[in-house]
Amino acid sequence: MTLPDFNTAADEICRAGMLLDARNMAPATSGNYSMRLNDGAFAMTVSGHHKGRLVPANIMRVDARARPLEDKKPSAEALLHAQIYRLFPATNAILHVHSVPGAVLTRLLKEDVVLEGYEMLKIFPGIATHDVRVVIPVVGNSQDMEELSAELSKKIKGDVPAYLIRDHGFYVWGDTMESCVNMCEALEYLFACEVETLKIKAGARA
Amino acid sequence: MTLPDFNTAADEICRAGMLLDARNMAPATSGNYSMRLNDGAFAMTVSGHHKGRLVPANIMRVDARARPLEDKKPSAEALLHAQIYRLFPATNAILHVHSVPGAVLTRLLKEDVVLEGYEMLKIFPGIATHDVRVVIPVVGNSQDMEELSAELSKKIKGDVPAYLIRDHGFYVWGDTMESCVNMCEALEYLFACEVETLKIKAGARA
Amino acid sequence: MTLPDFNTAADEICRAGMLLDARNMAPATSGNYSMRLNDGAFAMTVSGHHKGRLVPANIMRVDARARPLEDKKPSAEALLHAQIYRLFPATNAILHVHSVPGAVLTRLLKEDVVLEGYEMLKIFPGIATHDVRVVIPVVGNSQDMEELSAELSKKIKGDVPAYLIRDHGFYVWGDTMESCVNMCEALEYLFACEVETLKIKAGARA
Amino acid sequence: MTLPDFNTAADEICRAGMLLDARNMAPATSGNYSMRLNDGAFAMTVSGHHKGRLVPANIMRVDARARPLEDKKPSAEALLHAQIYRLFPATNAILHVHSVPGAVLTRLLKEDVVLEGYEMLKIFPGIATHDVRVVIPVVGNSQDMEELSAELSKKIKGDVPAYLIRDHGFYVWGDTMESCVNMCEALEYLFACEVETLKIKAGARA
Repeated sequence: MTLPDFNTAADEICRAGMLLDARNMAPATSGNYSMRLNDGAFAMTVSGHHKGRLVPANIMRVDARARPLEDKKPSAEALLHAQIYRLFPATNAILHVHSVPGAVLTRLLKEDVVLEGYEMLKIFPGIATHDVRVVIPVVGNSQDMEELSAELSKKIKGDVPAYLIRDHGFYVWGDTMESCVNMCEALEYLFACEVETLKIKAGARA
Repeated sequence: MTLPDFNTAADEICRAGMLLDARNMAPATSGNYSMRLNDGAFAMTVSGHHKGRLVPANIMRVDARARPLEDKKPSAEALLHAQIYRLFPATNAILHVHSVPGAVLTRLLKEDVVLEGYEMLKIFPGIATHDVRVVIPVVGNSQDMEELSAELSKKIKGDVPAYLIRDHGFYVWGDTMESCVNMCEALEYLFACEVETLKIKAGARA
Repeated sequence: MTLPDFNTAADEICRAGMLLDARNMAPATSGNYSMRLNDGAFAMTVSGHHKGRLVPANIMRVDARARPLEDKKPSAEALLHAQIYRLFPATNAILHVHSVPGAVLTRLLKEDVVLEGYEMLKIFPGIATHDVRVVIPVVGNSQDMEELSAELSKKIKGDVPAYLIRDHGFYVWGDTMESCVNMCEALEYLFACEVETLKIKAGARA
Repeated sequence: MTLPDFNTAADEICRAGMLLDARNMAPATSGNYSMRLNDGAFAMTVSGHHKGRLVPANIMRVDARARPLEDKKPSAEALLHAQIYRLFPATNAILHVHSVPGAVLTRLLKEDVVLEGYEMLKIFPGIATHDVRVVIPVVGNSQDMEELSAELSKKIKGDVPAYLIRDHGFYVWGDTMESCVNMCEALEYLFACEVETLKIKAGARA
């Protein structure tokens, strides 16, 4: 895998934002995206911009601890990106997005989200059959990134490169930005299937 | 903050309409949008045009009391815009949009809409944590703008720059048109989360 | 009102198809659209084409009784267009579209669809307030256009220029194609609000 | 019917992917598409690409038993395409897509999916009235294509050119790619109507 330079990464991040926004995973200024660069630094979205309408000037360079390498402000959540790159060194790209069905599932369920039996689960690395039970960990939201990071390090096992933050959104990570966009689309589809099924089951069960 | 001239404001209003229509917040000829101009007047959408297909000729100049400064007809609701500019003098842009989940919430709930625990709430000015309870006031609809305006002046406190009109739509205001579009997207996401959650809870509770 | 020539009408019909398809009101080859021409004939969509990807060659000329004036085949439902032009002579454009929430309402409700209290109702000609009760007639579907036409002539009163056919779709008519597209968007919004509200009420009531 | 050469077929397959992705039937890398060529071979999507962003290089030639005729890898499901071409020799194009409402129906219902009374059913060849009961067979998912193929040969009768795989997606086939895209849009509409109706009925019945 050849790692990209900053300009190539910035273009890929802008394009990812357009694709995700078209599927309603980037409302308002939500989300933050990053990629590992060929010089050891990372490209990351600057805080406060709409991800569906990014230009390269909205992307900045940070180091492995998410500290700015230029005079722009990364999201507070940049620390969660740094944590993933540290825990899973094969990671080259990370997407954090908001999602209506993802948020709804975390509001309704006290436990982790379980996805079972879907062909679509084969999008995740290492999964070769629908006949599998995949657990997407859910952590409580916090504005204290140290606290959130500590809770995450207990919960995420890395068998599936994704987790949900309650009432907030989800993270995915992978070896390319393309695979991350695909995992976002797959999770949005899977969460939508779960929410749609729950609506009918909740009424029928009553 | 530099205020725009009429042509710049008209372009921003047309663009806002395209963005909001793409997210289904501008069906038929619904909605009206305005911006404060650098000469003390206001740019406002002319009544009766589709907001997703606006051209600058569909934008007009009005004064601080929403009276036309050219031979075109503003919406009757222009008075509600004037009220917001008067009550909250830092306001430079206002959007009024229709919304399926927003209308559904006001049809179902007798009270104001309460949004609690969502990360997305941080889009509102002055809110720095998800751990907050935000009340979006709901007022009854009326075709008498004086009556509606009087009810609004009792209900809106300005802590959150948004209110809902029952069976109708919502208003947001802010210092830029960009921030208003972002707040519309955020509210649509939040209202959708609430409606989706209610569907499952209503069935499960029965 | 200046009536269009065939080429202008064909362009307007193609554009209407793109707008309606973008809102999911033209799946597969469903729907048919027509306009009154300045020479007394009518422009109508040829049977069997996708309405979101129309070209002018997919539009044909028919007479006031929906008989082809060129060697192409209009939809069997062209007779329903002719009926509307005959019953309501001020009509210059007609749209028939399919709609998920519209079809769902006719499957669930035995009666006509009642829309009450919505600001959006003001899109219909002659309605100046939300404080109104609008009845959209529902007729049973039939492949016999004479039978369907006879049932329609009993049901439609023309106070609101729209009716639903059960498990099928809806018709709207007006003085311009633009007003018809707006009424389609308004009805889709209103039917969606009704269906979304019913989902929550059905569960809560159980 | 003139069969296409490879380049024409590849263009049609790329376009079908864009249309289906725009309606959310191609999340992540899901789906696979094929067409019969004028030299007796078949054009088929290469495994692992996003169907909404296909380029001709993502299409390959395979023989009638789905064996690669060039150095690229077809999907494992290519065998299911070969089966359909063998069972129904008039078939010139096949689409396999994922669908949220389609997957939800197969998760909820133990039986085949029954579609009854919809005008939209007339999109299927040989159906001339809404007053009909169409059965879309559902087969259990399997990663063993021989097993899946054997179950399918028992279930599919070909009266309607479509079947569902549980928790997975659906197949349609026809004489042109255009007719296949139309049938996908029609099924998505019909499945959505069924799911929306079930949501309200489940709550009301409880």
